[in-house]
Amino acid sequence: MKLEVVTIGSELLLGQIIDTNAAELGRALAGAGVEVVRHSSVADRPDAIRAAVAEALDRTGFVITTGGLGPTRDDMTKKEVAALFNKPLRLDAAVLRALEERFRRLGRAMPAVNRTQAEVPDGATVLANPRGTAPGLWVEDRGRVVVMLPGVPSEMRGLLAEEVLPRLAERSSGVVVRSRTVRTTGVAESALAERVGAIEDDIAPLTLAYLPSTEGVELRVTAWGLRADDAERRLAAATAQLRERAGEDGYGEDGTDLAAVVLEQLRARKARLVVAESCTGGLLSGRITAVPGASDVFIGGVVAYDNVLKSGTLDVRPELLDKHGAVSEQVVRAMAEGVQRQFAVDAALAVTGIAGPTGGTAEKPVGTVWLAARYGADVRALRRIFPGDRGEIRARASQAALDLLRRLIAAAP
Amino acid sequence: MKLEVVTIGSELLLGQIIDTNAAELGRALAGAGVEVVRHSSVADRPDAIRAAVAEALDRTGFVITTGGLGPTRDDMTKKEVAALFNKPLRLDAAVLRALEERFRRLGRAMPAVNRTQAEVPDGATVLANPRGTAPGLWVEDRGRVVVMLPGVPSEMRGLLAEEVLPRLAERSSGVVVRSRTVRTTGVAESALAERVGAIEDDIAPLTLAYLPSTEGVELRVTAWGLRADDAERRLAAATAQLRERAGEDGYGEDGTDLAAVVLEQLRARKARLVVAESCTGGLLSGRITAVPGASDVFIGGVVAYDNVLKSGTLDVRPELLDKHGAVSEQVVRAMAEGVQRQFAVDAALAVTGIAGPTGGTAEKPVGTVWLAARYGADVRALRRIFPGDRGEIRARASQAALDLLRRLIAAAP
Repeated sequence: MKLEVVTIGSELLLGQIIDTNAAELGRALAGAGVEVVRHSSVADRPDAIRAAVAEALDRTGFVITTGGLGPTRDDMTKKEVAALFNKPLRLDAAVLRALEERFRRLGRAMPAVNRTQAEVPDGATVLANPRGTAPGLWVEDRGRVVVMLPGVPSEMRGLLAEEVLPRLAERSSGVVVRSRTVRTTGVAESALAERVGAIEDDIAPLTLAYLPSTEGVELRVTAWGLRADDAERRLAAATAQLRERAGEDGYGEDGTDLAAVVLEQLRARKARLVVAESCTGGLLSGRITAVPGASDVFIGGVVAYDNVLKSGTLDVRPELLDKHGAVSEQVVRAMAEGVQRQFAVDAALAVTGIAGPTGGTAEKPVGTVWLAARYGADVRALRRIFPGDRGEIRARASQAALDLLRRLIAAAP
Repeated sequence: MKLEVVTIGSELLLGQIIDTNAAELGRALAGAGVEVVRHSSVADRPDAIRAAVAEALDRTGFVITTGGLGPTRDDMTKKEVAALFNKPLRLDAAVLRALEERFRRLGRAMPAVNRTQAEVPDGATVLANPRGTAPGLWVEDRGRVVVMLPGVPSEMRGLLAEEVLPRLAERSSGVVVRSRTVRTTGVAESALAERVGAIEDDIAPLTLAYLPSTEGVELRVTAWGLRADDAERRLAAATAQLRERAGEDGYGEDGTDLAAVVLEQLRARKARLVVAESCTGGLLSGRITAVPGASDVFIGGVVAYDNVLKSGTLDVRPELLDKHGAVSEQVVRAMAEGVQRQFAVDAALAVTGIAGPTGGTAEKPVGTVWLAARYGADVRALRRIFPGDRGEIRARASQAALDLLRRLIAAAP
């Protein structure tokens, strides 16, 4: 089954927000065996919305839209789609009651402007949206379908899972588009390609793609339009080959987060972790605590942004800071040792570096980062010079810190 | 001037990565007076790439693509665009030399696979890419233009700024599409709409849109196709009206980050800031340190994820934790006081809450967060119950913490 996605909102084309809905729809639909063959974004303009939806309908007969269902004047998706199907908008009494009830629960009177949200194209199926005021709408006529979802990501996500995917499953023909990815880090794309590229012929008709990011390079294999069991069998075999060739540089599959991998390594060893970070400024701890259930391994950390905290809280000797500078092997080792000793835990990570845009020197350019990992009495320290802007350098440093600890624990007896 | 953007990569349609390039292109082009009328994404498939680029060319005559310029087999943009223009690919000696030189500088031999990156459509202008191996390409024939940029965001960004925008400026007709936004937080979209909605008629032909996110609601006014001076004058007037109506809920304009606003408030008062965070787990410090130059105000903080750090490092009395629980007004006040006293600074923020997915109770459901801000001896504490998943709750809590301190400082004598 194939469809197109049309995301609606001038803010998308103006780049004022990043279109996460398109990615989320793509992921969920692919998982359900539905191939998104094209995604388009158009502005909040009647003619643009109507043309994009009509063209997508002509190509695939099935379109999912997001956005333009709110109560304000820039919300016009419903009107344009109704016109495309030659259906009038009518006030839906049940939707209106649900809206009024929602406002009553929040202890507020319903603003008059929200009343338009109870208008639906004649004959449309209303998809109840318990998370917001705009219901989803499923309009179908002579085999052509447009499903309209709100643009607020959490509302879109809920409606997709609860109302749209089950209906799509009923229509599915048993053929799926499925991917699996092997995640690597600490190795360049072209070096990886030389190591794994030769398998491309072996795994055909599956395709292989390389996806570099600040977290490393992902290897993605995709099965297009195969039956589910055949796709799964071929994907499993291809993934096993990729993992073998990726070796120690591979740390997981699919959405696996390196922070979750490291937490799991530590959990299995009943070890606890603390972090001392300077240039990453909380980002590394933030990544670790983004993993649900991190609290049984991660006890906390110190954001030692100023040297006052490096010496005062982490016990880094001021002479080390004076002699070698805050971005040095000596200081990063002392930070890791200090934070590990202070909180008496098994594992510790430390990061210090120059994230820019200023602060670089000829000897220590912007992007220079020292990392240290401790596991018991085992220690590794590493210097890296990361490319990119401040955000990228901080993201790469967080990932590299986690990777250093991952490799240290894996090598431990 | 109008154009379309086509982003290429199966990973985009499969939702494995979020398409940040589309947003970045939209923002940069709008700033240069170029309207992106449509954005499409297609998979790494020859027919899909060729159809999307051809249709976009038919509509606007000018297309910018990203992605599919790498050295691997899934990279096929160049070949399809060359075919669309009936131009052969030829090996460009200068590009090949630059590639070989790049590998030499990195101390490595060039893999054979990278040689294809030196092939360019006959007659194309090569846009030098100092950040990566894939150059950009500008193909132009009988008034139709396709500009191909690499998909790696930092490379795309560099080529856009240095090679594409200057060339577009030369073609510009003096008419621009410009937006300004007023950022608000701590107020609901519909409440805001009732306060500001009436200005929509006053500001026409400018349009107004409401953009809700975890950071609050942005109000965006856009001038479409006006001369630059006229657009700027009308936008300034509309923005001033919006700011007045937004009142204390408005904290800035355009891309203004609330963390930067708070850092600037503190900098003007020569005050320094520390943070004690539990449920946000480093995210709040990470947001603050994402602002370049944060180090003259922000000295660091404690990620007190485990109660051991709350009592041991932040001096929260164990009786408070036992009696009221870690997520309570008493504990958040003690955390703020403890971290402020320990580091002897003027301003402090503390956050403790239940980010979920587990850990909620009837009395303290998932999303319950206590926030405290201190400025000198002034203190404010606030309980909020945030909607959304773990990530959204943590993002909303970070924003609300910054907002609490912003309002406290603004009210200080």
